[in-house]
Amino acid sequence: MIVRNLAEESLTPRRVDSEGWTSVRLILEEDGMGFSFHITTIHPGAELRMHYKNHLESVFCMQGSGSIEDLATGERHAIRPGVMYALDAHDQHILRADASGPMVMACVFNPPVTGREIHGPDGAYPAATEPAESA
Amino acid sequence: MIVRNLAEESLTPRRVDSEGWTSVRLILEEDGMGFSFHITTIHPGAELRMHYKNHLESVFCMQGSGSIEDLATGERHAIRPGVMYALDAHDQHILRADASGPMVMACVFNPPVTGREIHGPDGAYPAATEPAESA
Repeated sequence: MIVRNLAEESLTPRRVDSEGWTSVRLILEEDGMGFSFHITTIHPGAELRMHYKNHLESVFCMQGSGSIEDLATGERHAIRPGVMYALDAHDQHILRADASGPMVMACVFNPPVTGREIHGPDGAYPAATEPAESA
Repeated sequence: MIVRNLAEESLTPRRVDSEGWTSVRLILEEDGMGFSFHITTIHPGAELRMHYKNHLESVFCMQGSGSIEDLATGERHAIRPGVMYALDAHDQHILRADASGPMVMACVFNPPVTGREIHGPDGAYPAATEPAESA
């Protein structure tokens, strides 16, 4: 049994800060669960264009508000606590957080993130078999 | 892209009520994500003995407090918002919610739950290939 605490893990390398977001990976590939689980904070006013070519991801909003734009259809969906989206088709999207405050999301990735990825210039994480672009 | 809302899905068969808990399965096997994702409410004062023989599960506490007892070691861990536990070894456990209020948890199962399982008398969900014990 693994037991971890978000506040404590925020002080370890499981916390990753990037432009517009901060993520704490409570479960990584090395934990052997077959998925990874991250608590990700999207900074107020952030606009993030993303495309996970190598991963499926689900995102559940726990706090804050914003929107997700599906770049295949142009459709925008409001995000608020209780809303979940799942990128079941490696959907290209833009995630926007309202300026009024951060959005806090519970994210699941399959296959699991190793912790060594960063978003590439194409908005993707590399596949686990590709060399990581950064530590 | 799948977009779902906890409040709306609570009114559908994705909501399952059982003794001591209520779960809304926002992602099920049929969604093709390779995991399932549930928002599960543990009723105040509930004491649930569980053993997922066929699934790995992670649980992140969003609201409320209680404890998890690892039946292999007898160790008890406090549960409060921000605490996550992962049953990476099909751990037998007892989950307890404090009487002061419900615990609300974000749960991930691998392999994904189909939505047709119930906990068997052994505290397990059947494997997906076994006949479901109930609708």
